[in-house]
Amino acid sequence: MENTTEPEFEKISEQASEASSKASLDNNEEQKVTAFEVEAGETGVDYDRLIDQFGCDRIEARHLEKIEQLTGQKPHRFLRRNIFFSHRSLDWCLKSFETGRGFYLYTGRGPSSSSLHVGHAVPFIFTKYMQEAFDLPLVIQLTDDEKFFHKQVLTFENVYKMGYENIKDIIAFGFDPEKTFIFSDIDYIKYLYPNVCKMQKALTLNNVKGVFGFNDSDNAGKYSFPAIQAAPSFSNTFPHIFGKKKNVPCLIPQAIDQDPYFRMTRDIAKKLKYEKPGCIQSKFFPAITGLSGKMSASLAHTTIYLSDDPSQIKNKINKHAKSGGGDTLKEHREKGANLEVDIPYQYLTFFLEDDDELARIAEEYSSGRMLTGEIKEICAKVITDFITEYQERRSKVTDEDVKAFTAIRPIDPKSSKMPPKPDKTMEEAKK
Amino acid sequence: MENTTEPEFEKISEQASEASSKASLDNNEEQKVTAFEVEAGETGVDYDRLIDQFGCDRIEARHLEKIEQLTGQKPHRFLRRNIFFSHRSLDWCLKSFETGRGFYLYTGRGPSSSSLHVGHAVPFIFTKYMQEAFDLPLVIQLTDDEKFFHKQVLTFENVYKMGYENIKDIIAFGFDPEKTFIFSDIDYIKYLYPNVCKMQKALTLNNVKGVFGFNDSDNAGKYSFPAIQAAPSFSNTFPHIFGKKKNVPCLIPQAIDQDPYFRMTRDIAKKLKYEKPGCIQSKFFPAITGLSGKMSASLAHTTIYLSDDPSQIKNKINKHAKSGGGDTLKEHREKGANLEVDIPYQYLTFFLEDDDELARIAEEYSSGRMLTGEIKEICAKVITDFITEYQERRSKVTDEDVKAFTAIRPIDPKSSKMPPKPDKTMEEAKK
Repeated sequence: MENTTEPEFEKISEQASEASSKASLDNNEEQKVTAFEVEAGETGVDYDRLIDQFGCDRIEARHLEKIEQLTGQKPHRFLRRNIFFSHRSLDWCLKSFETGRGFYLYTGRGPSSSSLHVGHAVPFIFTKYMQEAFDLPLVIQLTDDEKFFHKQVLTFENVYKMGYENIKDIIAFGFDPEKTFIFSDIDYIKYLYPNVCKMQKALTLNNVKGVFGFNDSDNAGKYSFPAIQAAPSFSNTFPHIFGKKKNVPCLIPQAIDQDPYFRMTRDIAKKLKYEKPGCIQSKFFPAITGLSGKMSASLAHTTIYLSDDPSQIKNKINKHAKSGGGDTLKEHREKGANLEVDIPYQYLTFFLEDDDELARIAEEYSSGRMLTGEIKEICAKVITDFITEYQERRSKVTDEDVKAFTAIRPIDPKSSKMPPKPDKTMEEAKK
Repeated sequence: MENTTEPEFEKISEQASEASSKASLDNNEEQKVTAFEVEAGETGVDYDRLIDQFGCDRIEARHLEKIEQLTGQKPHRFLRRNIFFSHRSLDWCLKSFETGRGFYLYTGRGPSSSSLHVGHAVPFIFTKYMQEAFDLPLVIQLTDDEKFFHKQVLTFENVYKMGYENIKDIIAFGFDPEKTFIFSDIDYIKYLYPNVCKMQKALTLNNVKGVFGFNDSDNAGKYSFPAIQAAPSFSNTFPHIFGKKKNVPCLIPQAIDQDPYFRMTRDIAKKLKYEKPGCIQSKFFPAITGLSGKMSASLAHTTIYLSDDPSQIKNKINKHAKSGGGDTLKEHREKGANLEVDIPYQYLTFFLEDDDELARIAEEYSSGRMLTGEIKEICAKVITDFITEYQERRSKVTDEDVKAFTAIRPIDPKSSKMPPKPDKTMEEAKK
């Protein structure tokens, strides 16, 4: 059992150890993607370039076929539309699932006082799909300590309270209460601490500076934290879930800007003789004003919150959504819309489930038959439907639910989707 | 209650923020005292100079008088003989005791696989005296995480096991089971963590480097740890002991080389609006080979372990103890011994309780009437008596005792020595 770690070679380019991916685009605009900021040109982030720079792998047609075969259902629209587009060790996780050894999911959130926005929803929607489709155990980390270290004005007590409310926001995505463990770092630190110590001993200050770009004026908490985000990647951090099962592979749904954390984690995992965690990575949910940034909670009037009402959503999209349509009606009818930079269309790729309807809209709008006002209306309706349903679930989440999801309790680590097989088949799987 | 923090001004010299105290002695020998090493000339550490450099205060006759008055007994020989010689905020702690608000004791130890040596015993002997004399609550920290970060070869699992055995070694000093809470950082981290986070946020990397002399090749754990050693200085780290009592003063018996940790802690305490912990600081227990270093466990044949038998103790003292006696019998009879550099005599100042007998030996030996062989024999007997008694107690410590001392349980924070008075008398005490 000890030797069942993934045999593949790590593909990390030179630049991957740098704090940021900074690249001159062809049009001489710079893009910058780090764990803390995203800046790109008007045409958005060059994701192909990012994959090469970070040293990740592309999600390919064969991954979608395998996922369809293993789950018995059509892959999620985020996969069909290449929104989750990049990965590390996805093949290994799927193989582990196929041979009955399984894997688990890990995702997280830093608490904030404001409501989640639709961009925050993307990894949670996808994680819920993965949990449901594969019937997987899932752990969700509330990084209350991280927010405290990084936000000067926040007190420890406030950040903990915010985390508690955010647990309710997360539960409202519909995770399976039988298979989901949600924890605050502050509450769960005792269980995290053995792996935190092992990571902190294996990481030099130089390593942390290289990955995150901190300097000597940054506080000690910032340097302490990366090990805390890494610890849930290792299954022995959760003895109440995995018991004596060793090195159960972990898959981490995330936006691509979280890659530096887990690139570092994978490096150290090798030293600790742990299974390297896998990653499955999404593009950014673009800002309402255009593709040069991701949606951010700091600009209230251009951010669609999960707490917005239908008229707010409609207003924000109508007033602020960057359009790819023609400047005049005449030009639009002649040349059609540029879907690549059109925010309402881009949002529909995230939220409209029906592939045929999306294709119809693309055809109508790019040909100029559909007008900007019309696609904005469709977009507002689709997002409103999603948010309304979310709000209904959110309104029903109780303190009892929080208690149930955060209880340190046994969780069945096995998936009901595949007949469990003995672990030794992993040995065959390697060949 | 919030404003009852110590009003006195902090006396910290420029050099106090430096990693080490390095000074040219008059005889041009260098002394170096840091949290990690002690080096001095043949005549030993210049403690007067150290007090000035660190910015501590001298323990004076009035402190001994006050302690005698408050406890109703003669102060400990370590105080009478100026072995505990330096302090921070001792007056404030005594005042707090006098007015019924009380204070608590905090000391600690980094686990090691080898047995404790007699040098390690000094702070524990003194802490036991303080607990008994004042009837105080006491917390003892096992810094298993620190040892793991600082010793490359140690595994996490080993360091934890060593800590467990060391708890038995500590219990054998005779601490009051009703008033003593012993904890391993690894086990107790959940309770430490709120104050650890607050400290880590308040400390920049520059601060940590300045105090401990680390660099960017050091691991992240070393930077994380100082906040963990600081946390027990604040009474709200122990809700099961202090409940809703806020800012109970803390006094930390320690060897003077631990001053950098608590100098830093006191600085941050002000920022966090916490009571600054007090310190009561001892000289080093000298190496058997002379005053230029402190006793260290790394040189087995010149270290007196608490597990040594009488013949080992006798042999080590006879063979290796640096003598202040004359080179020849004739010279010794004529000039007498130099007590200042004579290790057997120095050891007697630590371990011989009887002041009159010590004075007699000093007189006999310095006059040349007593020979080196004779004082070595007395020294071996006194240390053997101490160690034999210790070993008897150690042999009776059980796993049940460990369970009792480490249980997270209510402990009466009040001293029976003084009638408790209302907290508001602290306001008067400030005047």
